Amino acid sequence: MSAEQNLIDLGLTLPPAPVPKGVYKPVLIDGKHCYVSGHGPCLPDENLIRGKLGKELNPDDGKNAAQQVGLTILATLKHELGSLDKIKRVIKVLGMVNAVPEFEKHPYVINGCSELFAKIWGEDNGVGVRSAVGMGSLPNNISVEIEALFELV
Amino acid sequence: MSAEQNLIDLGLTLPPAPVPKGVYKPVLIDGKHCYVSGHGPCLPDENLIRGKLGKELNPDDGKNAAQQVGLTILATLKHELGSLDKIKRVIKVLGMVNAVPEFEKHPYVINGCSELFAKIWGEDNGVGVRSAVGMGSLPNNISVEIEALFELV
Amino acid sequence: MSAEQNLIDLGLTLPPAPVPKGVYKPVLIDGKHCYVSGHGPCLPDENLIRGKLGKELNPDDGKNAAQQVGLTILATLKHELGSLDKIKRVIKVLGMVNAVPEFEKHPYVINGCSELFAKIWGEDNGVGVRSAVGMGSLPNNISVEIEALFELV
Repeated sequence: MSAEQNLIDLGLTLPPAPVPKGVYKPVLIDGKHCYVSGHGPCLPDENLIRGKLGKELNPDDGKNAAQQVGLTILATLKHELGSLDKIKRVIKVLGMVNAVPEFEKHPYVINGCSELFAKIWGEDNGVGVRSAVGMGSLPNNISVEIEALFELV
Repeated sequence: MSAEQNLIDLGLTLPPAPVPKGVYKPVLIDGKHCYVSGHGPCLPDENLIRGKLGKELNPDDGKNAAQQVGLTILATLKHELGSLDKIKRVIKVLGMVNAVPEFEKHPYVINGCSELFAKIWGEDNGVGVRSAVGMGSLPNNISVEIEALFELV
Repeated sequence: MSAEQNLIDLGLTLPPAPVPKGVYKPVLIDGKHCYVSGHGPCLPDENLIRGKLGKELNPDDGKNAAQQVGLTILATLKHELGSLDKIKRVIKVLGMVNAVPEFEKHPYVINGCSELFAKIWGEDNGVGVRSAVGMGSLPNNISVEIEALFELV
């Protein structure tokens, strides 16, 4: 089962790989490790999903935003590595939710990205360690930002 | 001096190793590295320590919550690795405090976990690099969440 | 082109390497990797740049604070490694901005550190992956905290 084939089977559209909005690399390769910068929820029309959980967005909106962050990370990986099949497994995900102080459902939100990765690379290789936490603010008021570490084949 | 013996000598009770509340692994082994997901302060009765620093909790309450996160991480490591003696040293801790915007004593709070690790693995091997920071919100309104990276023996 | 020479050419003054204010190491070496703890903006007189972005500080103040965090990290690296030339490249930066909930310009702020690193180690080796995010609060109300991972020569 290939990650590229899984992506096709899901029928989801990747946004364009985003161009860095600051002084950083989208991806850095270090031996067998592939570090990925914090990504936001880019839409195919290059707009961003914005707003805070518990204010403009409800948990299902947030989960959808986290899935969109996952798709944006896939777009970057495909652009930088050539193929999602270059990834062996997910090591680590840091899921950062833009939320009001009372928000409590960060794991539910970040599952939007984690479930996508599990469908792409499988229930074992697609799932790594994770923290899901609430930020006071995020760039451009995006709803979710996620950084990740992958192991290469 | 063994980490397991140090835990016995401290006379502290570990909570049950928590079951993941989302799509992630509690621990991932990558060569000699052991990545640990963000953990909360689980109590032996499986309740969580909840509330914000500077609102419901004072710094000593928070330090106690961070120690409880440390004990919860020890429970996960013991459950996943079989023994705390499989850990050679602490590499990195990210200590995230659920706090009001005016809170300033994050290092004091996270010392609750760091001092525990120093007692378990020793003053050198039990102490790694660290960031101690304030989150706008955390899952279930837990008071502290900590993720960690260890080196295996 | 040496990093040490680049620092001299920039004409910037390093603050004293800060002494840890908690139970952690400023730097930990793991094979070819150099992990650096979360650092704040220490000034040469050992005061800290304090205050929130969007409240006491504007984006240019914040960018200056992030540069000062970068200089503080350089001070720690020089103190711990002996020379900035021991660093081969930047792998990863986590830039955490102390901001009000409405703040949106985290990448602009963190560029203050990233542009400094690019001048010290060069446009390729001085630039790694990055996340730039907004914290609800930071220790001592510092304006920016940054942790980093470097590869050694």
